[in-house]
Amino acid sequence: MSFLSFLLGQKKTSASVAKDRLQLILINERGGDSKAPDFLPELQKELLEVISKYVKINPDDIKVNVDRHDSLEVLEVKIEMPQVEARRV
Amino acid sequence: MSFLSFLLGQKKTSASVAKDRLQLILINERGGDSKAPDFLPELQKELLEVISKYVKINPDDIKVNVDRHDSLEVLEVKIEMPQVEARRV
Repeated sequence: MSFLSFLLGQKKTSASVAKDRLQLILINERGGDSKAPDFLPELQKELLEVISKYVKINPDDIKVNVDRHDSLEVLEVKIEMPQVEARRV
Repeated sequence: MSFLSFLLGQKKTSASVAKDRLQLILINERGGDSKAPDFLPELQKELLEVISKYVKINPDDIKVNVDRHDSLEVLEVKIEMPQVEARRV
């Protein structure tokens, strides 16, 4: 099952709502003996800064969710965009 | 079904491989009458630059996949990290 087919299954009810949405999912899977520090919070901040160069982001329209399960860490950021406008730099 | 439970279902066979992996999924859902330009290729480049500040990325270990279906565009970037090392700036 691919992500696309998974998403298409999830999106069934949203066809009638003509909004632009951007969703960022970051999955960090750590090996058994990993000593890597937890960089997700800082990385999340910088990723949002990059995205905000391309799309208008209203802080109220951002939903952030972090799930952890054993060695798996999942950061999910959902952004609703009433009006999308490219702001290329 | 949450992303975490979806991922946990996908990861069943990888428990024995103790590598660090980072996966970035970017989903762009366009509203019916959206005139927004396709910014995903440029955004992908910049996001990878940000991630490379935090983790060592070998270009050979990056797999990029883009799926499109109607108004849904899914960018999936998988990065394998043999050795994770924080490079905070």
